[in-house]
Amino acid sequence: MSDGLFDGVLAAGPVAERVSGAAWLQAMLDFEGALALASADAGVIPAPAAAAIVRCCRADDYDVTAIGARAVDIGNPAGPLVRALTARVEPEAAAYVHLGATSQDVSDTAAMLVTARAFDVLDGELRSCAAILAGLADEYADTVMAGRSLLQQAPPVTFGLTAAGWLGGIAAARTRLDRIRRDRLAVQFGGAVGTLAALGDSGIPVLGGIARRLGLAEPVLPWHTERSRIAEVAGVLGQTCGAVAKIARDLTLLAQTEVAEVYEQGSAGTGGSSTMPHKRNPVAAVLAAGAAGQAPGLVAALLGASAHEYQRAAGAWHAEWRPLSELLRTTGSAVCWLRTSLERLRVDPDRMRANLDLTGGLLLAENVAIGLVSASRAAVSRQEASDIVADCCRRALADGGDLIDLLAGDAVIGKYLGRTRLAELLDPAHYLGSAGAFLRRALEEWEDRS
Amino acid sequence: MSDGLFDGVLAAGPVAERVSGAAWLQAMLDFEGALALASADAGVIPAPAAAAIVRCCRADDYDVTAIGARAVDIGNPAGPLVRALTARVEPEAAAYVHLGATSQDVSDTAAMLVTARAFDVLDGELRSCAAILAGLADEYADTVMAGRSLLQQAPPVTFGLTAAGWLGGIAAARTRLDRIRRDRLAVQFGGAVGTLAALGDSGIPVLGGIARRLGLAEPVLPWHTERSRIAEVAGVLGQTCGAVAKIARDLTLLAQTEVAEVYEQGSAGTGGSSTMPHKRNPVAAVLAAGAAGQAPGLVAALLGASAHEYQRAAGAWHAEWRPLSELLRTTGSAVCWLRTSLERLRVDPDRMRANLDLTGGLLLAENVAIGLVSASRAAVSRQEASDIVADCCRRALADGGDLIDLLAGDAVIGKYLGRTRLAELLDPAHYLGSAGAFLRRALEEWEDRS
Amino acid sequence: MSDGLFDGVLAAGPVAERVSGAAWLQAMLDFEGALALASADAGVIPAPAAAAIVRCCRADDYDVTAIGARAVDIGNPAGPLVRALTARVEPEAAAYVHLGATSQDVSDTAAMLVTARAFDVLDGELRSCAAILAGLADEYADTVMAGRSLLQQAPPVTFGLTAAGWLGGIAAARTRLDRIRRDRLAVQFGGAVGTLAALGDSGIPVLGGIARRLGLAEPVLPWHTERSRIAEVAGVLGQTCGAVAKIARDLTLLAQTEVAEVYEQGSAGTGGSSTMPHKRNPVAAVLAAGAAGQAPGLVAALLGASAHEYQRAAGAWHAEWRPLSELLRTTGSAVCWLRTSLERLRVDPDRMRANLDLTGGLLLAENVAIGLVSASRAAVSRQEASDIVADCCRRALADGGDLIDLLAGDAVIGKYLGRTRLAELLDPAHYLGSAGAFLRRALEEWEDRS
Amino acid sequence: MSDGLFDGVLAAGPVAERVSGAAWLQAMLDFEGALALASADAGVIPAPAAAAIVRCCRADDYDVTAIGARAVDIGNPAGPLVRALTARVEPEAAAYVHLGATSQDVSDTAAMLVTARAFDVLDGELRSCAAILAGLADEYADTVMAGRSLLQQAPPVTFGLTAAGWLGGIAAARTRLDRIRRDRLAVQFGGAVGTLAALGDSGIPVLGGIARRLGLAEPVLPWHTERSRIAEVAGVLGQTCGAVAKIARDLTLLAQTEVAEVYEQGSAGTGGSSTMPHKRNPVAAVLAAGAAGQAPGLVAALLGASAHEYQRAAGAWHAEWRPLSELLRTTGSAVCWLRTSLERLRVDPDRMRANLDLTGGLLLAENVAIGLVSASRAAVSRQEASDIVADCCRRALADGGDLIDLLAGDAVIGKYLGRTRLAELLDPAHYLGSAGAFLRRALEEWEDRS
Repeated sequence: MSDGLFDGVLAAGPVAERVSGAAWLQAMLDFEGALALASADAGVIPAPAAAAIVRCCRADDYDVTAIGARAVDIGNPAGPLVRALTARVEPEAAAYVHLGATSQDVSDTAAMLVTARAFDVLDGELRSCAAILAGLADEYADTVMAGRSLLQQAPPVTFGLTAAGWLGGIAAARTRLDRIRRDRLAVQFGGAVGTLAALGDSGIPVLGGIARRLGLAEPVLPWHTERSRIAEVAGVLGQTCGAVAKIARDLTLLAQTEVAEVYEQGSAGTGGSSTMPHKRNPVAAVLAAGAAGQAPGLVAALLGASAHEYQRAAGAWHAEWRPLSELLRTTGSAVCWLRTSLERLRVDPDRMRANLDLTGGLLLAENVAIGLVSASRAAVSRQEASDIVADCCRRALADGGDLIDLLAGDAVIGKYLGRTRLAELLDPAHYLGSAGAFLRRALEEWEDRS
Repeated sequence: MSDGLFDGVLAAGPVAERVSGAAWLQAMLDFEGALALASADAGVIPAPAAAAIVRCCRADDYDVTAIGARAVDIGNPAGPLVRALTARVEPEAAAYVHLGATSQDVSDTAAMLVTARAFDVLDGELRSCAAILAGLADEYADTVMAGRSLLQQAPPVTFGLTAAGWLGGIAAARTRLDRIRRDRLAVQFGGAVGTLAALGDSGIPVLGGIARRLGLAEPVLPWHTERSRIAEVAGVLGQTCGAVAKIARDLTLLAQTEVAEVYEQGSAGTGGSSTMPHKRNPVAAVLAAGAAGQAPGLVAALLGASAHEYQRAAGAWHAEWRPLSELLRTTGSAVCWLRTSLERLRVDPDRMRANLDLTGGLLLAENVAIGLVSASRAAVSRQEASDIVADCCRRALADGGDLIDLLAGDAVIGKYLGRTRLAELLDPAHYLGSAGAFLRRALEEWEDRS
Repeated sequence: MSDGLFDGVLAAGPVAERVSGAAWLQAMLDFEGALALASADAGVIPAPAAAAIVRCCRADDYDVTAIGARAVDIGNPAGPLVRALTARVEPEAAAYVHLGATSQDVSDTAAMLVTARAFDVLDGELRSCAAILAGLADEYADTVMAGRSLLQQAPPVTFGLTAAGWLGGIAAARTRLDRIRRDRLAVQFGGAVGTLAALGDSGIPVLGGIARRLGLAEPVLPWHTERSRIAEVAGVLGQTCGAVAKIARDLTLLAQTEVAEVYEQGSAGTGGSSTMPHKRNPVAAVLAAGAAGQAPGLVAALLGASAHEYQRAAGAWHAEWRPLSELLRTTGSAVCWLRTSLERLRVDPDRMRANLDLTGGLLLAENVAIGLVSASRAAVSRQEASDIVADCCRRALADGGDLIDLLAGDAVIGKYLGRTRLAELLDPAHYLGSAGAFLRRALEEWEDRS
Repeated sequence: MSDGLFDGVLAAGPVAERVSGAAWLQAMLDFEGALALASADAGVIPAPAAAAIVRCCRADDYDVTAIGARAVDIGNPAGPLVRALTARVEPEAAAYVHLGATSQDVSDTAAMLVTARAFDVLDGELRSCAAILAGLADEYADTVMAGRSLLQQAPPVTFGLTAAGWLGGIAAARTRLDRIRRDRLAVQFGGAVGTLAALGDSGIPVLGGIARRLGLAEPVLPWHTERSRIAEVAGVLGQTCGAVAKIARDLTLLAQTEVAEVYEQGSAGTGGSSTMPHKRNPVAAVLAAGAAGQAPGLVAALLGASAHEYQRAAGAWHAEWRPLSELLRTTGSAVCWLRTSLERLRVDPDRMRANLDLTGGLLLAENVAIGLVSASRAAVSRQEASDIVADCCRRALADGGDLIDLLAGDAVIGKYLGRTRLAELLDPAHYLGSAGAFLRRALEEWEDRS
């Protein structure tokens, strides 16, 4: 996955090394080792042979690039790896290497192991993000800010509720990752055509043994050309990147010079601009957005390769390796940069309040209308109330008048609502509805999960 | 969704009408009705008003196209629908229409309802496919055919195992559809910015009431801009189409003139060609493939719209409506055509056997080598056995000799294996390994589900 | 393409009706008519028969839905249309209908005609957009506004230059559309397997005749399974939507409540919000963004269907019809909404200037540093100058001091630059570099094109 | 781009090294060198300083990985590269490094150079493919084979025409690559916000100078956030992979055990299977298909990143680097494997003929019907003729009779057509229509290009 130049930004975080060529090679060797041990358990091969094979299953002992180069003859790296492993194993055990397996057993199981290991660190990163978000939700539960709809200011929300909403996306991704990790990351073992013919009656016990030893699920039957596992992995990674993309977009918007409700406080040299010293580029959020944006196409690439022919496809499995690695990489990078951005995040409640005041109370118009209907015991209908308030708002906008004066001066409003009540109705903190309740539900769900 | 001309082939089956403009409109009205009733339950509006509103929530009473046309002013059809509904409701109830809700509450809940209703019929279609596949697996459990790898013949499998493998993809899709239907298709109700501010303290009870009445899940908090539900729906539809694409590809390959192991037996006029009367076009499988192939891009479109800004996105929700409908449509069409193809399917076991014999026993080479190692009690190593057998195969291929003669005539083989044993080793029915066991596992899983 | 409910927003503008079922049907009939006439020209069929056929090639005379429904037997609507046409034509001419052609000849040529007709109106819409943008570029050539980088304010640009940049994307799309229209939208005519065998030696003259009559290019050979034309059409539509997406994103950002440098002034009722009367939703820009966002997935769908088997694919052409129509539709809608947004656009130069002043001159820091190097005849190095100015900026930001005072007060700066010169260096209008020159180049290119 | 393990198969051919981290770094340095020289030409910096800078613009002198690692602070590798270059340049010249440029000027121009250099070798590979295909078209111009429609045998074609059709896709890709290389791969140079403000009046001359020195086009104005160039590059690479995918699909189908009309003859060890010695896996075609299949998703990823905000996007350019490199890589690999497959290709005309005979003349039914109409001077109508012949075909299929006997025995046919004429009508070589003419047109077009 490495190209050096862009890896710092595009392959950030702990997932990247879990999807490297070396990581794939180790996963392939782990399959071969588990196969040998499970075969010995089932009495298919001698136990000492299995032990001898396992001793040779360390990726460091092999030359990744050389094996990769030799893959051109048969079209996948499992073949040359098996040859290299066989050559390395002591002669008595050599005949037992890879017994009953086919190349795709190796590459598919390796894909599942690589994915499982990437998921494990991804989950840790997501948990860190979730913990920070839960903390933000709790800390800023009462911090009022403008809601925004179609990028226009709208009635108030709290920053805590905003963070709780972000948490929801992360939590959903974790739930789905967990389930796939447990139920769907399964060993592949079927031999040339999915019958395990070379193992006679011992196929299924060996299959089960490999699964147990590798910590993967045991499939009902081989899935060389039934790729729903790949589709589900692709789906959840796309979903995870979607959750990151949403948060990153919000963070870059909130950090705009004209909004400035949050910023990233990195170490010196981070996010600054040599030519624009005032800038506080939200670099981590920007890179999270950049990483997450690569996912949908990669998901399509994996789904687009689903029509595997017969018992072994003519190209479709070869079409999966790189998009899968790339999708894991970019998801890992997206989540890592999101965590970084959240760690660097500084919140400016004063600016939130100031922005809320930009429209001079207009955001609360709906509340005033509701209050008017209520105070009049519906003598003023909702539509009338809405029209009356809207008219005051339009005049306030046009002439710059103070909204509360205009409202209080209106004949109908004046009949039912005094200035004190109007001030209350215009107070954003009094127009938050279920914001607090929703926030607590989100935190409770998070705590139940943890 | 309808354009008339292509609908017969591209919008086949019962899903299509569940995603029509009228179906969306009814789902929107169902939201409004459920909102009214739930609001009455919570004491927010009078029960008679709710009843009056519900009476006006029949899509047939509205002009879909006119409402669609008026949607241009605010950018979504929920606004004009609410106005039309309000105009229709008796005056005393009019003020209670849509109370506390925002346009996206309507369109998102409608999207979930449309999806749920499409899933319900999709599940029926998938169940039908699965039942046929299970039947095929059972009926052809012992029908030997050539396995195929990279489109080259490979050791034997059974047609039953092939069908069981297809069943696996369909079963996985159903499992995932079920779970999403139950856990993730959730009502949307948050008001302008997700706080339900207009409802004061009554927001959450009303939310719960709507969910119960519509048979949708109750979300922890509004998800106007947290689109993981859409991502999961997209993912499972992509997965389902992937399962269909794999089966359809296999069916069209098996139906090739040169392979001819299956064909579609449609009614007269189906699949024939006026100019080529011998042709048996597997039309249904072809259309299933064509429908399924549209999915990956639509999934990418939905995932690509995940970065919804703030509390309400500036375009991203608008970008979801059509790809969601199209993805449901094409998945429905793909599954419908698959079911049709499977209903029409005729299997030719004789041709399967004849094709298996095309390579004169070469497919069993591996079995002979294994038998040789075994009979020699490993005096002949696996590699030696493999080389010896391969050499005989090459000579058989080059000179057209009978493989069993060449094998029996080999000095080493002749020492350990007689012609009877060789014939046995060359019998595909004796080289199926765990095919039967795998097949039974797949059928048991299917029966457990049913 | 119509589903009524969402068409107002998702199928806006003149492209939609060019891609309807009726439009496809007419295009198919146009092929049949041109085939008949060209065949008569080539002496393959009698001229009166051709005339009789042409008289029956009006889509209004056919029932789109009925033909669509009958398409299920052979998997495409061309077959039943040909039967319906044959039934309608007077008996003597019936034998000459569709002579030598195959279903895909009809559907592919229709796809090209539908595309060509959609391109024609799309080009008109794009030209309108370009004209408005050129007008904006000219009108606001000297209107200074903040540049923005990573959503942070940056050195100044002009609104004219911004509009000229938008114009560049539209102009590039038009150039590419033109070329594809001319060179790549080609007739399809090859008969069952691309040999035109049924026409003996007359195939190529008839092919040429059809091309001339339909105003399409004549291909070197049939392209039933060589889909680069579809790929190029997909590519240019994706590119066009990309150009729209960029402009729409900018417009929604510039229209933010906190930025407010532009807004859409629609007719009454447009873009307002019943509950938020102050809002000026940039509805058209939002819908343009929503439409454009659907394109990348549709492009992937079309490119993903490129592996057409042999002489006629088993599903891949069926996979193209809907994504092609949808891509044309959404591009048409995107461009229509962009034009609408630009027509409604109001620009607020005062607010642009005010926003530029938000950072108190910091955006011009680079200019001061350059001025200092220059005034000192490089006695102060670039790095030193940059550091000195950056230090003043940091102090201004931290303490809220006036930047010009801090700069003037600095010992080094004070040595080389007086307040007058500093004021000049801090004037955004004096730090626009080649903005004007670039703008003029863009306008010249536009004028050369027009 | 390298991960070692999969590079042999997934990064085959000369494109891979043109898109490596080192290649990107060199391209960035080439920009800096060209900028220095062009600035000296324009009198902006001293010529000796430019020469000094150029001397330090060799990628080998820099540590790609270290620069990549330092990119995390500002989010792109151009920043740390400029610092490293500045540190390396002699002190008097240091102040002139990168003068007037911004990071994205470096990375965008590098992207164009990397693309241009990849295109150059890609074109060579495509030319090789085209030359082989032209040779095949010429050599097999008269080699009859079954046409195939929906994977069913259809009237005859020639293998030469098939190859000519493949050539068409390659030729179209080359034409488009050429044009983009010449017109659209343009230098990027705009400074912080696209005004080149730091260069005063010298911006445009410097821009032109860079373009000339790098052999790239000069854009009308900077395109930091107008990404149509990227969209066009993505489009043509997707198109190229589509052309490869089509050919690779055909090759794997033609190489099927049951079809066996072509095979790949690689060196020993290539394409064989240890356990299935008879197999002739078309490994190169399989890998070409696998590589090409990755493209549509990557195109969607690039198109999906088109909405770049304002003057510099918050993530969208970062989202392009990897998909662009990956798309170039996979296209390069796809084309390389296609060339390899074509070099290895062996054609079996006897098997083509034998397969054509599988259906005992049924493929020529259309020709007999046409012949009957003609011989009867239309006394037998097309429909009647078609029905009569179809009836004979059905009987031949059902009862295994010889078609010519059945035809000759039919009362109507017998009246107009003798056995000699029937034999002629049933000879595939007499039913090729314009196959030869089309083939020659394709070859002429290819020769005109060369």
